[in-house]
Amino acid sequence: MHWRIGLVGFGNVGKAFVSLYREFREIWNKRFGLTSDFVFILNSRGGIFDEKGISDEALNEALSSKEGLTSLKGWRKGLKFEDLIDSANINLLVEVSPTNIKNGEPALSYIKSALSKGIHVVTGNKGPFLYNFRELFDLAKEKKCFLGIGCTAGAALPSINFGLGSLSGSRIDRIEGVLNGVCNFILTSMEEKGISFEEALKIAQEMGIAETDPSLDIDGWDTASKILIIANYLMDSSLTLKDIQVKGIRGISQKEILDAKKIGKRLKLAGVAVRDGERVKAEVKLIEVGENHFLFDLRGTNKGILYVTYPAGEFFVKGGASSPTGAGYSIWRDIINFQFKLQ
Amino acid sequence: MHWRIGLVGFGNVGKAFVSLYREFREIWNKRFGLTSDFVFILNSRGGIFDEKGISDEALNEALSSKEGLTSLKGWRKGLKFEDLIDSANINLLVEVSPTNIKNGEPALSYIKSALSKGIHVVTGNKGPFLYNFRELFDLAKEKKCFLGIGCTAGAALPSINFGLGSLSGSRIDRIEGVLNGVCNFILTSMEEKGISFEEALKIAQEMGIAETDPSLDIDGWDTASKILIIANYLMDSSLTLKDIQVKGIRGISQKEILDAKKIGKRLKLAGVAVRDGERVKAEVKLIEVGENHFLFDLRGTNKGILYVTYPAGEFFVKGGASSPTGAGYSIWRDIINFQFKLQ
Repeated sequence: MHWRIGLVGFGNVGKAFVSLYREFREIWNKRFGLTSDFVFILNSRGGIFDEKGISDEALNEALSSKEGLTSLKGWRKGLKFEDLIDSANINLLVEVSPTNIKNGEPALSYIKSALSKGIHVVTGNKGPFLYNFRELFDLAKEKKCFLGIGCTAGAALPSINFGLGSLSGSRIDRIEGVLNGVCNFILTSMEEKGISFEEALKIAQEMGIAETDPSLDIDGWDTASKILIIANYLMDSSLTLKDIQVKGIRGISQKEILDAKKIGKRLKLAGVAVRDGERVKAEVKLIEVGENHFLFDLRGTNKGILYVTYPAGEFFVKGGASSPTGAGYSIWRDIINFQFKLQ
Repeated sequence: MHWRIGLVGFGNVGKAFVSLYREFREIWNKRFGLTSDFVFILNSRGGIFDEKGISDEALNEALSSKEGLTSLKGWRKGLKFEDLIDSANINLLVEVSPTNIKNGEPALSYIKSALSKGIHVVTGNKGPFLYNFRELFDLAKEKKCFLGIGCTAGAALPSINFGLGSLSGSRIDRIEGVLNGVCNFILTSMEEKGISFEEALKIAQEMGIAETDPSLDIDGWDTASKILIIANYLMDSSLTLKDIQVKGIRGISQKEILDAKKIGKRLKLAGVAVRDGERVKAEVKLIEVGENHFLFDLRGTNKGILYVTYPAGEFFVKGGASSPTGAGYSIWRDIINFQFKLQ
């Protein structure tokens, strides 16, 4: 399959996505028959476009230059998705612009527009799925398009992939995940170093793990978005962000951490989804886990997810530490898995 | 897809395989369009055969009777695979007879025979793959047949599946697995209870975890077989059992276990496969792991596997405790995954 890719978003993840293709293209071509052209690349201010495929030289320049796209000869300020989607003749939209948890825009419109024209979509953007999950998957089904969202639910941590390929045909009754590396780093640091929430957050910010505005992470919304997407995908629910009770870790006291430690336990911020008859309930909360719990040994920025299933049994997956490379890889993973099914 | 299944082996795994279909068939039909007939079922002494598909009543009787197949009206003593393979018109052979690590027979011949006639094969039998891995997969490829062997490498533990679907396109550089529940149970019991190897083995035998002749497990051959299959599948090697250095746990002393415990470490019997340039080296050995090692917290009969990959990162999967249900499920998992790709 030859992919003509339109890429929206050229931050760290978008760059890693392009860079990985250049590193692995010979292997993937040989192994999967996968080849690609990048037809357009857009950021929030404009972009580049070449119907014949953006040249290797231009891609190299864009990847290595500090200014990114704007330094390129072909840079067109104000170039917009709407200008290209009908004429650029792409067969795959890769959408990796930042998440907007309020209404998913502008990514939501981009994805709808692409799917409605029969263009496959792979995205790392959670926003569009927080209120419109079923609508988007129904549209993809109607248009016989692939809609790959593995990256949205933990990046390289294969939360959705594991549920699909490793638990095929099994009923998933419960999912518990430590899905946010920042929160786990803060909780681990507070316990190990005996420091306060504020101190641990500051360290995370200085290390570049946490954002200047860490609200999405520490107030639990990132975890909520991920457990929503995982539950909707793997447990056939139709949750929206409003259906999820969310408690974060902002301002958690040292006493709470140390009280747990005294009795050999640890606090974890977990996204939990549970099958309850025909319904699925999801929430984000602090859970106290003992040393026999699957999540007990997840330290620092590590993520992990537990699946309680029938008849396959219980499984725990950990790994996929947060990184642009991991996120960029997870976009390719979706593409490769889709391509495998096509063959 | 409608499967006309010939089943060889009606021990615990074969029974679980049939039983699970009866439990899940409505769900799987609705979800995957999967339907099946069991055309023949053989054990080592004979079998039953009905070209129209063995009736539900007969399957129920066979599953519930202590005598199994021999109590059925249609039982034919001495009925053989060779009598059926040309005439029974099956499109899937499910082979779950016991493993023979010397030469893989008779399963090896059955599988070759089926593939050469264009019949898909799913098996839980390690024997045929210990010296003939490439030959069998080359034959499957030539005949455009599916050869599903997920069950052979840890049963419900999705060792191969994880490598395929969750690490798609990534290069696997190292695999380390605690792949044998009996050995891990013995090592855990020796450490926790301060008992000898012989005492721990006896408990495992009394609990029905270990066989009367436990050689395959405790001498490391079961682990060796699994790491061979996993490495050949996921790392493109062509190892045979002769290429693997194997050390088991027979006669391990309490002192060794307790010396490790004193310094906060644990001993694990691991199958290890490492990429070394163009080659892959595999061995089975005792490794001493500290509390930061992925395998440290695997207790009792639990299994787990670590993948060191690029660019996806490091991942650890645990779960899939040994059980006939888990093994029977893993056969269906292969069938469903194959069917998904067909659609």
